[in-house]
Amino acid sequence: MITVKDSVHDHIEVEGVAAALLDTREVQRLRHIKQLGTVQLVYPSANHTRFEHSLGVYHLANRALSHLGIEGSLAERLRAAALLHDVGHGPYSHNIEALTYRHTGKYHDDVAELLARGEVGEVLREHDLDPAAVAGLVAGEGQYGQLVSGELDVDRMDYLVRDAHHTGVPYGTIDTGRLVRELTFVDGELVLDEGNVQTAESLLLARALMNPTVYQHHVARISKAMLRRAAERLLGEPDISASQIRRMDDHDLLASLRMTPSTAEFAHRLDRRDLYKRGVWAELDDVPQYVLDAPHEELREVEREVAEQTGVDPGEVIIDVPAEPSMKESSSRVVVNGDVRQLDRQSPLVSALRTAQRQQWRLGVYAPADAADRVGETAVDVLGLDIEGALVNYVRTGQRTTLDQFD
Amino acid sequence: MITVKDSVHDHIEVEGVAAALLDTREVQRLRHIKQLGTVQLVYPSANHTRFEHSLGVYHLANRALSHLGIEGSLAERLRAAALLHDVGHGPYSHNIEALTYRHTGKYHDDVAELLARGEVGEVLREHDLDPAAVAGLVAGEGQYGQLVSGELDVDRMDYLVRDAHHTGVPYGTIDTGRLVRELTFVDGELVLDEGNVQTAESLLLARALMNPTVYQHHVARISKAMLRRAAERLLGEPDISASQIRRMDDHDLLASLRMTPSTAEFAHRLDRRDLYKRGVWAELDDVPQYVLDAPHEELREVEREVAEQTGVDPGEVIIDVPAEPSMKESSSRVVVNGDVRQLDRQSPLVSALRTAQRQQWRLGVYAPADAADRVGETAVDVLGLDIEGALVNYVRTGQRTTLDQFD
Amino acid sequence: MITVKDSVHDHIEVEGVAAALLDTREVQRLRHIKQLGTVQLVYPSANHTRFEHSLGVYHLANRALSHLGIEGSLAERLRAAALLHDVGHGPYSHNIEALTYRHTGKYHDDVAELLARGEVGEVLREHDLDPAAVAGLVAGEGQYGQLVSGELDVDRMDYLVRDAHHTGVPYGTIDTGRLVRELTFVDGELVLDEGNVQTAESLLLARALMNPTVYQHHVARISKAMLRRAAERLLGEPDISASQIRRMDDHDLLASLRMTPSTAEFAHRLDRRDLYKRGVWAELDDVPQYVLDAPHEELREVEREVAEQTGVDPGEVIIDVPAEPSMKESSSRVVVNGDVRQLDRQSPLVSALRTAQRQQWRLGVYAPADAADRVGETAVDVLGLDIEGALVNYVRTGQRTTLDQFD
Amino acid sequence: MITVKDSVHDHIEVEGVAAALLDTREVQRLRHIKQLGTVQLVYPSANHTRFEHSLGVYHLANRALSHLGIEGSLAERLRAAALLHDVGHGPYSHNIEALTYRHTGKYHDDVAELLARGEVGEVLREHDLDPAAVAGLVAGEGQYGQLVSGELDVDRMDYLVRDAHHTGVPYGTIDTGRLVRELTFVDGELVLDEGNVQTAESLLLARALMNPTVYQHHVARISKAMLRRAAERLLGEPDISASQIRRMDDHDLLASLRMTPSTAEFAHRLDRRDLYKRGVWAELDDVPQYVLDAPHEELREVEREVAEQTGVDPGEVIIDVPAEPSMKESSSRVVVNGDVRQLDRQSPLVSALRTAQRQQWRLGVYAPADAADRVGETAVDVLGLDIEGALVNYVRTGQRTTLDQFD
Repeated sequence: MITVKDSVHDHIEVEGVAAALLDTREVQRLRHIKQLGTVQLVYPSANHTRFEHSLGVYHLANRALSHLGIEGSLAERLRAAALLHDVGHGPYSHNIEALTYRHTGKYHDDVAELLARGEVGEVLREHDLDPAAVAGLVAGEGQYGQLVSGELDVDRMDYLVRDAHHTGVPYGTIDTGRLVRELTFVDGELVLDEGNVQTAESLLLARALMNPTVYQHHVARISKAMLRRAAERLLGEPDISASQIRRMDDHDLLASLRMTPSTAEFAHRLDRRDLYKRGVWAELDDVPQYVLDAPHEELREVEREVAEQTGVDPGEVIIDVPAEPSMKESSSRVVVNGDVRQLDRQSPLVSALRTAQRQQWRLGVYAPADAADRVGETAVDVLGLDIEGALVNYVRTGQRTTLDQFD
Repeated sequence: MITVKDSVHDHIEVEGVAAALLDTREVQRLRHIKQLGTVQLVYPSANHTRFEHSLGVYHLANRALSHLGIEGSLAERLRAAALLHDVGHGPYSHNIEALTYRHTGKYHDDVAELLARGEVGEVLREHDLDPAAVAGLVAGEGQYGQLVSGELDVDRMDYLVRDAHHTGVPYGTIDTGRLVRELTFVDGELVLDEGNVQTAESLLLARALMNPTVYQHHVARISKAMLRRAAERLLGEPDISASQIRRMDDHDLLASLRMTPSTAEFAHRLDRRDLYKRGVWAELDDVPQYVLDAPHEELREVEREVAEQTGVDPGEVIIDVPAEPSMKESSSRVVVNGDVRQLDRQSPLVSALRTAQRQQWRLGVYAPADAADRVGETAVDVLGLDIEGALVNYVRTGQRTTLDQFD
Repeated sequence: MITVKDSVHDHIEVEGVAAALLDTREVQRLRHIKQLGTVQLVYPSANHTRFEHSLGVYHLANRALSHLGIEGSLAERLRAAALLHDVGHGPYSHNIEALTYRHTGKYHDDVAELLARGEVGEVLREHDLDPAAVAGLVAGEGQYGQLVSGELDVDRMDYLVRDAHHTGVPYGTIDTGRLVRELTFVDGELVLDEGNVQTAESLLLARALMNPTVYQHHVARISKAMLRRAAERLLGEPDISASQIRRMDDHDLLASLRMTPSTAEFAHRLDRRDLYKRGVWAELDDVPQYVLDAPHEELREVEREVAEQTGVDPGEVIIDVPAEPSMKESSSRVVVNGDVRQLDRQSPLVSALRTAQRQQWRLGVYAPADAADRVGETAVDVLGLDIEGALVNYVRTGQRTTLDQFD
Repeated sequence: MITVKDSVHDHIEVEGVAAALLDTREVQRLRHIKQLGTVQLVYPSANHTRFEHSLGVYHLANRALSHLGIEGSLAERLRAAALLHDVGHGPYSHNIEALTYRHTGKYHDDVAELLARGEVGEVLREHDLDPAAVAGLVAGEGQYGQLVSGELDVDRMDYLVRDAHHTGVPYGTIDTGRLVRELTFVDGELVLDEGNVQTAESLLLARALMNPTVYQHHVARISKAMLRRAAERLLGEPDISASQIRRMDDHDLLASLRMTPSTAEFAHRLDRRDLYKRGVWAELDDVPQYVLDAPHEELREVEREVAEQTGVDPGEVIIDVPAEPSMKESSSRVVVNGDVRQLDRQSPLVSALRTAQRQQWRLGVYAPADAADRVGETAVDVLGLDIEGALVNYVRTGQRTTLDQFD
C-alpha cells in the first residue's frame, strides 16, 4: 500500500492494482496536464493537475466501495477505472479535446486502446484484469460504471471540491463524506439513500455556481478559444497529427506552439495574458437556430468572411458557439419515502437550473482588442443575430478594472 | 482599536464606538447565548455564540462601509447597529422568542428600549449617537438599515459561513469577500453590482441547503419544541415573567428549568438527549388551512385533547406548526446590463426555491417514544390531516441508526 | 453504527460499545462543559465542549486501532476508554479541578467509581467489559493505556487541532493523519515509526506555541483564578460539598455562583469581563523557592496579609503560583535507524523547549484594577520577590489597547 | 485597482504600480515557474507557481505598509519590490539557480538589470520609480528592504502558508495576520512588537518542520539533483548559454531536456518518476571537512571516478553536498519588556534549532536503483566517509512502500 498526501483529502491510501498503476507512464503523464487548462489565467492558483484529481477520484471510489461492501476482483476493476478515468485526456484537458477527436476516432475507443496497450495494459493483465472491462467502467457502462461516470459519480465529487480549494471560489464545497456514505444500489441503479434530496441537490447547485464563475468564465472561454485556434493551426502543419497532439502534455503543446511560426503569436499572447476581447456576447434567444446547428467548417467560413470585411487577418476572428446546456446530474436518483425517484421529478430546482443554464449561455465573438468593435458589428450582421440582444462590443465601463475574476 | 481573533474571519479590528460597546453588559451577555440553540443536539460542534456572530457581523459591516466609502457619524451608527443587532435576543436565541413576545410587547420596541437604557445607551450617547437611530438601523429602516437587516444584509453572510464552520456542514460557504466588495447603492437601494447574479443566487442556495440540513433538522425542531414547552410552563409559574425570561442567558434558563419541578423533566430529557419522537410528519398539502391558521391557544387545546384520548400526560403531546415559508433574499437586487433587477425576476432559481421550501415544510406531532405511535394516529384524526400523506409514526427502519445527523 | 458530523474530523463513525455509551447521562453531560473554560474570554470563538473533544479522541483512537490491527475485546476497551477519558471532569474543566480534589479523594479513584456505577457501568457490563480495566486505560496504565494517556496519546492530538480550529490560532495544526498512521508498538512501548522525528517534534512544538498564546494567556489565567476563588467561596457555604461541585456542569456552576451572595460579585465580573489586573508578573528566577513550595493555605494567608496592608477587601487579592513546567511529550519514543530512541535524547529541541517553558512561567498577583498597583508593590515585599525582576504594576502602555489576545 | 482571487489570502487588491506591473511579460512569466520545483514528485498537489506567491508577498507587504503607516512613493517602491522579488528566478526556481549563476554574473546584478530593462523598467519609470532603488529593496538593502528580504520578511510568511496549503503538510500554518500587524520599526530595525516572542519563534519552528518534511525531503533532493545534472549537460551543448536557460520557464526547460539527446534520459526519468536511489546518506559528523569544502569541479571528478570503478556510465553518479545549514530568522528582533532583543539571545529554541538542522543535514550519493548499492560502497571509500555512520545503500525494508511522502 502506498500513502500519498493530498491537499484536499489529506492522506490517500493507494491499494491493490491502483498502487501498481501509479508509476506507469500513462498515469505519471497526468502530472503534466492542468486540471482546468486556461482557467489559470482567471484564477492564478488553479494550477492543480489531472494526476492529483485522479488520485482523488480513486480515493472517493475506494471509500464508496468500502461503504458499499464491494470487494475482490470487481473492486479492483473499479479502483483501476477510477485512477485511469482521465488517461485519455490530451494536453490542456477539455480545452482542445473536440479538436483532436474531430480528426480521429472516438474518445472511448481511444481510451480502450490506451488501457489495452503500454504499461497500463501490462499492469492490468498482471493483476488478472481485463483492460476492455476497465475501459467499459471508465465509459460508465453497466451497473458499476455509474460510480465512475454517471449522474452520481465520484469524478464530479472530486473536481468540485478540488477546484474550489485551488481557485478559492467556495461554491464547490460539497459534502463528499456524506455523498460516498449515502450511495447505495437499488435494483442495479446507483442512488442516494433516504434523506438525501438536499445532498443530491447540493451537487447540482455546486456545479450551477461553479460553471459561470469558474468553468465558463468569459476570460477562460476566450483563452481556451485562442488555444484551440492555435492547436488547429498546429494541426495544419506538415508532420504533425491529431494523435500526436493528443499524446502531448501541457509542456509539449506550449513548447510546440511557441516554436511553430504559425502559432507563435497565439502562444505569445497566452503567455502574456494579452487576450482577445469580446465583440459579441449574445444570449441564446438572440441566436438563430442555423447558427447553433452550423457545422464546424461553416463557422470557420463565417470567421473568414468577417475577417475579410473588417480587414483583420484571417484567423484573428473567433466565433465561439458552446453546445446547448445539458445537466447530467438532473437524472440522478434518490430514495424518498422508500421509493427511488429521479431528482428532476422530485426537486423543482432541476428545471430551474436548466433555465438558469440557458440564461447563462453565451455565443462569443472574439478579436484583438483594437478590432473587437468592428468585428462584433460585422459578425452580428453576418450571423444574423438579433442586434438588440447581442451585446456588441462588450466593454465594461466604469472605474473598476479587475484583472482576473471580472475582467 | 481593539483586535479580536475570530475562528471565521481571523483578526477583527474593532473601531470607534464598537470598541466602547464591546465591554457593555448587554453585549457581553451574548457570550452566553448559543447561536444555534438546540441544533447542538444534532451537530455537537455547533456551540458558537451570538457574541462571536455579532463581532462577525460588525466586521463584515465595517468592511462594506470601507468599500462603500461611508465614513463619519453614519459609519459609527452602522457599526453600532451591526454589533448590537442581536442584543434583544433571549436565551436560546430564536428558540423561545415567539413565546416571550407573545406575552409582552413587540421585539423592536424592546430593542429600542434596550439601546436607549443601560450601559449601551450610555456609550451611544457618549459617542453622540442617537439610540433610536441605531435601533432603526437594527430594524432595517431607511436606506442604510438594509445593510444590517435586509435582503443583502451582513447578518446573513456571517451566520451562513459561521454555522458551516461550526457544524461541519459545508453548504453555507458563501464568498463573503466578494459579497462585501460588490455591494453598492443605486437610487437608495442596496444592490449587488454588475456580474453578480450568481453571487446573489449563492446566498439563497446556501440558505436553501442549510435550512433542511441544519436549521430545520427534525431533531433540532423536536428539541426546540420541547424547550419551548418547558419555557411555557416556566412562564406559568408564579413570580416569573416573560420579560425576566427574555433577559436570561442560556445558563439562567437551563438552571431554572432544572430547578423548577414542573419543567425538570423536560430539562432532564434535553440534558440527556432523550427526546420525543415524531408521531406525525405531514407535508403542507396534507394539512387543512384551518390548522395552519389556528391561533396558538387552539393548538394547545388540540394537544390536550389528543393527550386525553391517548392516555398520556397533558403536556406530553406537542404539535409543531411552522410558519409558511418565506424567502427574504428573493427580492434582493442585482445590476444586470446596467439595470437594477429584482432577483426573483432575473433568476429562475428563486421560484424553484420557493417551491422547494414548501416541499420541505412539515407539520410535526411529537410525543415520548413509547406513545408516539398512538399519539400520531389520534392527532391525524383530530387535526383532520390527509392520513395517506401524513407520515404517521415515522420511524426509520433499517440497520443504520444514526445519532445526530439523520436520526 | 452511529455517524456524527464533527467540525474537525468531519464524519465520525461511532462503533461498538462507544455507540452504546454515547447516550449515557455521564457522556451527554460533557456537552455542557467547555473544553477551554475561561479561555473563551480571550478567544471568543473557543466555545467547544468536552463532548465533541471526547468524540474526536474516540475517532483518532479508533483509526489508530485499525492501523495497529487491534481488534476484539481489547479494541472495545480502548474505544470505551477514549470516549470516557474526560467523564471525570468537573465544570470548567481543569479550571477548578485542583480545588475540588483538594477536598476529596484522588481523581483517578473518582473516575474508576464513575465508570463502575451509573449508566456507564451498566453499558460496559452489558458489553462484557470490566469497568476497572477501562478506568486503568483512562489512567494510562499498561501497554495500551499509552494510547489514551501517555506521551503520544490521541487526547493531545485531538485537543491541539480542535483548539486551533476554534480559537483561530493556527499553531496547533499538527498532522493527525500521519500521527495515527505512524504509531506502532515496539517491545510493548508505543512509539512513532522510522522517519518521524519531526512528527514527534511537531507535537511538542505545537504545545509549546499554544501554551503561552492560548492555554496560559494571562487573561485566561486571571479569569481562571477568579473562577477558582469564587468556587472556593462556594465550597465554604453550608450545604455544598466538593463532590457536588464536581458533578455540576458549567451551567450549574455559573448559576450557583450568580445566586450565592458571597460569590455573586465574582460571577458578575466574569459575566461582564470586568477582570482583575496584574499587580505582579514575576519570572521564575525572581521567586524564592519557599514561595514555590508554599502550601495552599499559606498563600491564602499571604493574600489576606497583603489585602489588609493595602486596605482592599480580603479575597480581592489573588496570588497565582503555577506548578513548575513539565513536558510529558519529551519522553515520547521514535524509531531512528531501527532503534527506539527517547525524543529528548534524539532532539535538541526538547531541552530548549524546557528552558523556554521556564522562561514563560510567571507568578501573578491580581487585584481589582484600581488596587492592582499598591497590591503589587506590597505583594513584592511580603513574598520577598526580587523587586527588579518582578514586573510590578504591569500595564502595557502605548496607543494600542487590544481587547482579547493581548490585553 | 485590480482584485485577484487567491487560494490562500482570498481577495488580493492590487494597487498602484503593482497593478501596472501585473501584466508585464516578466511578471506573467512567473505563472510558468512552479514554486517548489521537483517537490511536486513527493507532494502531488504542490503545483503552485511563483506568480501566485508573488501576489501573496505583495499582499502581505501591502497590509504591513498599511499597519506601519507607510504611504506615497516609498510605499510604491515597496509594493513594486514585493511583487517583483522573484522575477529573477530561472525555471524550476531554486533547483538550478546555483548552476546558472556559476556560469554567469551574480544574481542580484541580474535582477537589477532585469528591473531596469524591458516592460518592468518601463512601468517603473512611468510611475517615477527608480529601478535601481527597487532592486535594492529586493536585495534587502536599507531599513525598508528588510520587509522584502530579511529575517522577518513577507516572502517567508507567504511561502510557509502557501506551501502548507498546497502540499497538505500543516506545519507551515503561521499566523500571517498577527505577523503583519505586529511588525514595527525601532531605530531603523524591523522588529516584532512587545508580546511576540512566540510569534517570532513560530516562524522558525514552521521552517524547522517544513524543511525536512517538504523542502529537503530526500525524494525532492534526488529529483532536484537529477534535474540539475540534466541542466548541466544542456549547458554543455553548443548553442545554449546559461543566461538563455535562466530566462526559460518550466515548459521551455522540460521541452529542451526532452528533445536534447544528451538529456532525454534524465527528462524521461523525471517524467516517469523513475528516480535514482540513495547509495549513501551520511550525517554531517561523518563527512570530512575537505569534502564539505570541495569546489564543484572536484566533486564532479569524484563522481567520474566512482562511476568508473563501479562500471556505471559517467554521469549516473550524483554526489549531493548541501551547504551547511544557516538560519536567517535567528537574528530576527523582538521587543521584550521595552527592549529590542535578538531572537537567538532571547529564545533557547534558536540554538536548539541550529543543532537540529545540523542533525538533519545529509550528504547524498545517488545512482540508478540497480547500481545504488555498489556506487554507495565505492563512494564511501573515495570520499573517505566514516563508513559506520554513512548509511550505505539506504533501503527501507518492511512491508510498507510509500510512494510519495516517505519513499
